[in-house]
Amino acid sequence: MQNFARNLLTEWRKLKLPFTDQTFVVAVSGGADSVSLLLALYELKKLKKLNLRFVIAHFNHDLRGAESEKDLQFVKNLAFELNFELALGKEKIPTEGNLEQNARLARYKFLYETAENLHAQCILTAHTVNDQAETFLINLIRGSGIEGLGGMKVVRDLVPIKSKTQNLKSKIQLVRPLLSWAKRADTENFCRRNNVEFQYDKMNEDLAFKRVRIRKILLPLLEDFNPKIVETLAKTATLLRQDFEDLQTLYESKFQHLDGELRLKVIKILQPSVRRRVLREWLKNHRGDLRGLDSKHLEAIERLIFSQKSGKTIELPNKESIVKEKGKLTFKQKNIENDLLSK
Amino acid sequence: MQNFARNLLTEWRKLKLPFTDQTFVVAVSGGADSVSLLLALYELKKLKKLNLRFVIAHFNHDLRGAESEKDLQFVKNLAFELNFELALGKEKIPTEGNLEQNARLARYKFLYETAENLHAQCILTAHTVNDQAETFLINLIRGSGIEGLGGMKVVRDLVPIKSKTQNLKSKIQLVRPLLSWAKRADTENFCRRNNVEFQYDKMNEDLAFKRVRIRKILLPLLEDFNPKIVETLAKTATLLRQDFEDLQTLYESKFQHLDGELRLKVIKILQPSVRRRVLREWLKNHRGDLRGLDSKHLEAIERLIFSQKSGKTIELPNKESIVKEKGKLTFKQKNIENDLLSK
Repeated sequence: MQNFARNLLTEWRKLKLPFTDQTFVVAVSGGADSVSLLLALYELKKLKKLNLRFVIAHFNHDLRGAESEKDLQFVKNLAFELNFELALGKEKIPTEGNLEQNARLARYKFLYETAENLHAQCILTAHTVNDQAETFLINLIRGSGIEGLGGMKVVRDLVPIKSKTQNLKSKIQLVRPLLSWAKRADTENFCRRNNVEFQYDKMNEDLAFKRVRIRKILLPLLEDFNPKIVETLAKTATLLRQDFEDLQTLYESKFQHLDGELRLKVIKILQPSVRRRVLREWLKNHRGDLRGLDSKHLEAIERLIFSQKSGKTIELPNKESIVKEKGKLTFKQKNIENDLLSK
Repeated sequence: MQNFARNLLTEWRKLKLPFTDQTFVVAVSGGADSVSLLLALYELKKLKKLNLRFVIAHFNHDLRGAESEKDLQFVKNLAFELNFELALGKEKIPTEGNLEQNARLARYKFLYETAENLHAQCILTAHTVNDQAETFLINLIRGSGIEGLGGMKVVRDLVPIKSKTQNLKSKIQLVRPLLSWAKRADTENFCRRNNVEFQYDKMNEDLAFKRVRIRKILLPLLEDFNPKIVETLAKTATLLRQDFEDLQTLYESKFQHLDGELRLKVIKILQPSVRRRVLREWLKNHRGDLRGLDSKHLEAIERLIFSQKSGKTIELPNKESIVKEKGKLTFKQKNIENDLLSK
């Protein structure tokens, strides 16, 4: 067995993923990361280490014309050669707002629906240690607190937003089996060693994207300070995630009934760090998550709490708002649409 | 009153520092940060907002020949003009090992002894928001966990290392009254507005020093991503420090009696994040702090815990070591010298 496949199998055991009878959706763009994941799954299946049904899911963002078409053909051929089933999705991505985020939302929606259709409980994506380090830096630069700095989770639930107030759809897990150990160089080497080509996404070279500038400019500079900076940042993210989860666990009992309105009298006397946590938990209970919020929103709410004036409002993204009146903070919600949580 | 002085006074109140009858040692290098602090204290004294005795402490590292002599003359003149007392220290810094760290240790030893001689309970240093951001990046690049990423504290106790096992000396507080609000541009502008020169330290331009490369190369690049990166990183440090302190408080009761030996049987069954915390606390109780240790030491100890072999040893800095024998971990100490804790 090749090392890369063995590492994947070790991670598979560590995550206690099933070895038989289940269907897994594997997100494959055609790049080195997802192709290496696919090749390793193929090897483990051939060696009878995994007796699972893998369905490749390829999403065509239709942003890059002939490029996109080439990726599609490549993934089709790969699926044929490896004898894996293939699910294809295609959508015109709205170019208003944040293009990267729109594309990601559409992609995850497709992955979620594919998994639901196939009765799969798991979607595999090929995020690597490098992706984790880049995500950490993006969040650091943005000003995230401990939760955001914790980066991507190896396993997380993918559920529709506002599932509390709608018909609950299937709970599907998003699993990133390369995230904690594979570097980008490993995935590329594994493809080469197996004589399998992979596609280069031209958007990965476009310095108009923040993530690309982080990869191409910031990380190389940081490597001058610490040659292992990618591993270091990814580990820092993991440690902070554990610290965050410890804090959540320790505070859990105090936060169980944080919905409805917040009484100013109570919230004012809390320690600042506890107050911040209470506010975050309160917002999360109302919104489903903290997406789109950052420290400036929390600070605005804190100022609102302590300001002398009544009847004031803080606007949040997505037409949500916080209103202060009659000694209370009230959360005002936008109209719920059928959004899908994704990251 | 000028804005800068008003901000200092606001911080003074927030920190509940005394307004009368006490002696404060003010560390003054002659650079813009320490000169601006001194000028603001002078103004607050003149306006009778603070009725305190301030003694300037200037330490001559004797690393830069004529430069050092010029700084000394400058600080002498300043003390004369402002009518502040002056304490001078001078020492040849050993150039073996980490020069910056040797210089810092000698400087803090001088500050501590000066405060002790004057029966001062407080030493003021002029660290700014920029220093905090730089410290954060240094620790991030080094791979620090949540405690290190928390950066410098606004107030911390300065006590001799190993005070538990020696005659306890005075407890003196190190206070950084500019750390949470003043940027370097603010200190320079305040000096200029008062028509007071300040000295430029050539070592602040020497790219051989990591901190200088961080200031001159890394931070400007990060500013392309976020123009407020200095404030952002300093705030992230503050938030992580509060999270760390919350974790400490929440775990405190569990850690009270963590000295002596650690039983492997007990430590093995802990959650990884809890085990790491227990190990850190145990090391801290033995050593007084975690100075000089980083994640690779903790990982080595973790591997020792789970390895099959007995009778093995992990070497730590300063001739300390961890020995595994008879189902226990034992901490072996170096011979205690009269070190002084500083940062």
